[in-house]
Amino acid sequence: MRLHPLGWTDARRLAILDQTLLPAEERWLELDSVEGMVEAIHALRVRGAPAIGIAAAMGLVAALRAHAAEPREAFLRRVERDAAAIRAARPTAVNLGWAMDRMARRAAAAAGDARAILAALDAEAQAIWDEDREACDRMAEHGQGVLTVRTRGRPGAEINVLTHCNTGFLATGGIGTALGLVYLAAERGERVHVWVDETRPLLQGSRLTAWELGKAGIPHTVLADGAAAGLMAAGRVDVIVVGADRIARNGDTANKVGTFPLAVVARHHGVPFYVVAPTSTFDLACPSGAAIPIEQRAAAEVTRPLGRQAAPERSAAYNPAFDVTSAELISGWVTEKGILHPPFGI
Amino acid sequence: MRLHPLGWTDARRLAILDQTLLPAEERWLELDSVEGMVEAIHALRVRGAPAIGIAAAMGLVAALRAHAAEPREAFLRRVERDAAAIRAARPTAVNLGWAMDRMARRAAAAAGDARAILAALDAEAQAIWDEDREACDRMAEHGQGVLTVRTRGRPGAEINVLTHCNTGFLATGGIGTALGLVYLAAERGERVHVWVDETRPLLQGSRLTAWELGKAGIPHTVLADGAAAGLMAAGRVDVIVVGADRIARNGDTANKVGTFPLAVVARHHGVPFYVVAPTSTFDLACPSGAAIPIEQRAAAEVTRPLGRQAAPERSAAYNPAFDVTSAELISGWVTEKGILHPPFGI
Repeated sequence: MRLHPLGWTDARRLAILDQTLLPAEERWLELDSVEGMVEAIHALRVRGAPAIGIAAAMGLVAALRAHAAEPREAFLRRVERDAAAIRAARPTAVNLGWAMDRMARRAAAAAGDARAILAALDAEAQAIWDEDREACDRMAEHGQGVLTVRTRGRPGAEINVLTHCNTGFLATGGIGTALGLVYLAAERGERVHVWVDETRPLLQGSRLTAWELGKAGIPHTVLADGAAAGLMAAGRVDVIVVGADRIARNGDTANKVGTFPLAVVARHHGVPFYVVAPTSTFDLACPSGAAIPIEQRAAAEVTRPLGRQAAPERSAAYNPAFDVTSAELISGWVTEKGILHPPFGI
Repeated sequence: MRLHPLGWTDARRLAILDQTLLPAEERWLELDSVEGMVEAIHALRVRGAPAIGIAAAMGLVAALRAHAAEPREAFLRRVERDAAAIRAARPTAVNLGWAMDRMARRAAAAAGDARAILAALDAEAQAIWDEDREACDRMAEHGQGVLTVRTRGRPGAEINVLTHCNTGFLATGGIGTALGLVYLAAERGERVHVWVDETRPLLQGSRLTAWELGKAGIPHTVLADGAAAGLMAAGRVDVIVVGADRIARNGDTANKVGTFPLAVVARHHGVPFYVVAPTSTFDLACPSGAAIPIEQRAAAEVTRPLGRQAAPERSAAYNPAFDVTSAELISGWVTEKGILHPPFGI
């Protein structure tokens, strides 16, 4: 029941599940150009920090394939140029830049002609994907304890997990980051129920997370983002797990807008709040949240939900895609290397 | 530019501006039946705690008008029955029950035949409206100081007010509760900019507050509810003002869902957080927030924003219309009698 949002076509073009159309329609796009890749990332046809990194690496390879007859030096310059163009598609998720840097380094280190470099890049993209899949499995394993924090010693008790945005198989190369913990727990027979923040403005919670959980047969309930606080006050949330787009050296964590108020309210009520992310999401060169670039997106995402005008045409909108949760509000960072705390020894 | 959402037609039917259609369409409905009134309140064609009370009183009169030839006792029983039916349309806003109680008491106290009772009720409904209009003016006056809390001594400085839901002329019989403070400040030459929480699920912020502010020519910016916390962290919010649907004796305050997390985050950042409401919103018989009934509304309001399916058809939704902000998070209660604190001497 796990549908990966990425794949190769027979012709080795990049296939992505267009996530802007979910849950109404499952339509696949085929991409083999840098422009197409940039558009797909910017328009969030592929999203989720780890998935963006993987798709970017695969998309770069797909775009380079037509140029495998070029001289080595021209091809290397093209790799640099194309990787730079793709990395500029979105500023906040560090995984995108991380994947492009890694691909550029691999190209520079590869011996032989363009065809040989392309083969090396193909292998590197596959490695990025494979590593992310394995990282997801390990995060899920390391994070099992955080899910059962309030139900331990009460066999069969329902675990109520609240999450924001989408962090499952649509967002990664594997079972997910935060949602991966839920999938593994359910697989092992835990009774898990997920409170799904709808996640305005783009509704990745109701559109994507609810769709994933439905496919996986996991009980879940969608709510407006503003309703989560009342649930916590009523003691109906055992733990909150979220993903991350960039984690600074001090632990400040950029994630989908609406994460930070959740963390503040969780602290107010003593609800544990965990970030789940692979170490590729950590940006140790970034000292704190203040240095994380926050993407501002189009006003229409707020004023025209699902394409229907909500606010008056002339009203301005403020639409940051992310916010920064200060490290002291976070109970722990679940990674493939275990549950970490700053200073991160990675 | 202030358009009141309520009025009488020439035939003395109740006219209401259908707020479910704003901002796209300004359509007026005419009502003269209890069923029509209940539907209009339940469907939020008229909303805002004070406006609901006024509309209910006027709608009761409009519905009774056809029965003015009945014997006194039968008519009094009808008043009781109709008032009870209308008060059951929504459970949380205390103003609805308050207005219906007041109308029933006035009917019982009126001398003479049904026609005389009807005239008394007509006058009572008008009094409820007039008093609310005056209360709005007085609240705005009493609340001016809370808007200028961070700009005092800096002439011409921009005041950045954040608000949630709609509390202006659409929600009351006058210039509004929380938004009334903004209108008066702007009228007096203050530079006010309003951050408008869109207020999911029904988007009263983007649909109604932005529309009102646009009509009034007041600079404003709409944002997803989850984006308010980042604004506070960045020091871009001077003060938060919200309305209320019911205020318990200890100060716990029910208001549109999403108010409580705002208050928690405001406390976290030291941003003043004021409730603005007429004393008709205080329910001194209610000891605390735990005793306030919270209306649960249809899942489709969450899963089908503006009528378009967002979540998978089979996903459940949790949709409380209100949440309760605990008294200790509220800086003060701005009423027509001044800025109060519990225990309320009213």
